[in-house]
Amino acid sequence: MKVTESTISIQRLEDDLRELAEIGRADDGGVYRMAFTPADMQGKEWLERKMREAGLETSRDGACNLSGRLAGRSPEKPTLVIGSHIDTVPCAGILDGTLGVLTGLECLRVLKESGAVPKQDIELIAFSDEEGRFGGMFGSQSFAGQITPDTIHRAADPTGQRLEDTMREAGLDPWEALRARRDPERIGAYLELHIEQGPVLSTANEQVGVVEAITGLFKWNVTFSGEPNHAGTTPMPMRRDAFMGIADFAHEIPRILDENGSEVSRATIGRVELTPGSANTVPGEASFTIDVRDTDETVMNELAGAIRKTLAAIARRRGLTFSYQVDSWIHPVDCDPGLVGIIEEISREQDVRFRRMVSGAAHDAQIVASVCPVAMVFVPSVEGKSHSPAEWTAWDDIEAGANVMLATLRRLAFGA
Amino acid sequence: MKVTESTISIQRLEDDLRELAEIGRADDGGVYRMAFTPADMQGKEWLERKMREAGLETSRDGACNLSGRLAGRSPEKPTLVIGSHIDTVPCAGILDGTLGVLTGLECLRVLKESGAVPKQDIELIAFSDEEGRFGGMFGSQSFAGQITPDTIHRAADPTGQRLEDTMREAGLDPWEALRARRDPERIGAYLELHIEQGPVLSTANEQVGVVEAITGLFKWNVTFSGEPNHAGTTPMPMRRDAFMGIADFAHEIPRILDENGSEVSRATIGRVELTPGSANTVPGEASFTIDVRDTDETVMNELAGAIRKTLAAIARRRGLTFSYQVDSWIHPVDCDPGLVGIIEEISREQDVRFRRMVSGAAHDAQIVASVCPVAMVFVPSVEGKSHSPAEWTAWDDIEAGANVMLATLRRLAFGA
Repeated sequence: MKVTESTISIQRLEDDLRELAEIGRADDGGVYRMAFTPADMQGKEWLERKMREAGLETSRDGACNLSGRLAGRSPEKPTLVIGSHIDTVPCAGILDGTLGVLTGLECLRVLKESGAVPKQDIELIAFSDEEGRFGGMFGSQSFAGQITPDTIHRAADPTGQRLEDTMREAGLDPWEALRARRDPERIGAYLELHIEQGPVLSTANEQVGVVEAITGLFKWNVTFSGEPNHAGTTPMPMRRDAFMGIADFAHEIPRILDENGSEVSRATIGRVELTPGSANTVPGEASFTIDVRDTDETVMNELAGAIRKTLAAIARRRGLTFSYQVDSWIHPVDCDPGLVGIIEEISREQDVRFRRMVSGAAHDAQIVASVCPVAMVFVPSVEGKSHSPAEWTAWDDIEAGANVMLATLRRLAFGA
Repeated sequence: MKVTESTISIQRLEDDLRELAEIGRADDGGVYRMAFTPADMQGKEWLERKMREAGLETSRDGACNLSGRLAGRSPEKPTLVIGSHIDTVPCAGILDGTLGVLTGLECLRVLKESGAVPKQDIELIAFSDEEGRFGGMFGSQSFAGQITPDTIHRAADPTGQRLEDTMREAGLDPWEALRARRDPERIGAYLELHIEQGPVLSTANEQVGVVEAITGLFKWNVTFSGEPNHAGTTPMPMRRDAFMGIADFAHEIPRILDENGSEVSRATIGRVELTPGSANTVPGEASFTIDVRDTDETVMNELAGAIRKTLAAIARRRGLTFSYQVDSWIHPVDCDPGLVGIIEEISREQDVRFRRMVSGAAHDAQIVASVCPVAMVFVPSVEGKSHSPAEWTAWDDIEAGANVMLATLRRLAFGA
């Protein structure tokens, strides 16, 4: 049977990617399809048309998540959902979530063309605002019932533009998002293909990552306070230099990870701000963000404890005080071992170079995991780049990943 | 004779300080008398009136430096100049340069009242823009002939407001500053009293600092470049984290100073900027300012060399590149040993608790040193604070410093 099974058409997928890339593209080569902007809404209209052309039954929910459904023989069976998102960060590349959505579209097109009818409904979904313009993953959170009236009311983008106003301008009623929640009993599983956004597969020359777990993370905003002093008149031993607290902490990160972390732990200082921030003043205050990730919540807790102890010790040693604010704590998610096993088996059968790995980035799958079993397929990111026009994945690798996804759908929906 | 000599009136000096403090004072308690603002010009008018009331002959030069002259017996002898500045940083305290100017006013008032006529002219000067609103020390640089048409044309404040426009709005012709240069042959010496702006005298409970030298300094803007990467998807060993370059460098500062510096060397990282500067991105670029000071130019050169080597080694070790831009290089200045000796002798005679020390901050005296011998008297800054409403010096210490200045003038102008 295997030899007769059709595969995806990389040419059609390429055509789709190129067409959608033109929506929201700017002169700098970047794609600007931020959630609920006119470009984002135009992208969804384009996708809706494409879904219909593929013979799918389309619908939008109250969060403007766009679905295309391939009807199964037994609609009472829980739906098999595949998807990702087509919204982008500012100045994005053309892949990211879009690749997952358009790969799903191509898979359903192939299945539809084959004439075979799946056991259960298969639903392709493009979630709204995965990139977190309004602070979360609004689309998948609505889908999973994690949105409240308060979330909607408070949500605003970094410029202060409110979600409510933005949705209304796009002709949407934000409160309808509260109706987007799906009955978990009606969702059988969720599969998502995404670019890796890291250098692991590309460095190892592998084509597919079989994701076992999606990292949890916490972000703190830490402030050391010392004393602002004149850089010329204050002898070195009389200083309480708040920046030296950060320098000390940066050097403790490898030790903290070695002692308390796992192989997949990460810790990053991404932003630093010194006050008053003038060249001739010893910094009196020094703030920084620390982003810490692991796939095991126990490890996350141990890292948090070790960081607190380290900050306290540094503050004591340097005559500083410190405070921190927890900006976020996102739980790690395990992919479903059964689904992971199937994807691995198919990758092996298709002779794809693959590895099991964890996702260090957050994805819609992480939210949807509260509703149903999930799994993810990664394809390589050239040089690990993403969220930039330099983002790329070789066509061969896209094709390999898409065919793994197609075969997984066949296994789950046709019992192949 | 000594017992009959009059001393300064701390009450009059206090009255003057309190009156001038009201000009440019804001609701936050800070003084806002930035160069060439209406408040600064109003301050000069107030001072001009006070000089006249003290019987001094007033004049302004093309840089709006304001002088009050006590005529001597032999006007052909080079003038003895004392002074400082009354312009302030935003949200300043009430002392800083103002204390030096008003102390000078009180000294000349006492001398005038005593009826004795000095050998040479004594000139009290309030220099314009010592605080460097327009990038330099415009007043003393004009006085010393260090201003060119190009300086005037390019000078602008940090908001982009041009010196030329600002002076014109104040009713001044900026080009007249080119006529403010004084013939070095006509200036015998320059004395300046100033608050220390550091914690040394205050910590040691001393009343007067006899300044032997004014520090030189250089400021570099250094940039490490690595690779911006996703904080979640990039394994720790695959990173080229530009911020870690700064953290490494911060930890090398004590070694660099120990190996190449002197007791008075200082090095400060005052500003840090990470790019892209988002919590979930490994910094691809990390810029910082380093402000390095010493009173010996050879030491400054050695420190600069050691810093270059250190930056290069860190960049190699971390897989980064680095570049730096020299923002300034200001030569150190030695005070005149003869004048320093006289001030020390007088401090001892007056039973003042004093120490010889260096100035870690720049002052008008540093510029004027290119024209004539200079010396400075410091009074303590409580907790080392300055450039803030918290700036303070005990009245006793002000009185002690002012009387040292008065006796120094007597020694130099009356041969006492």
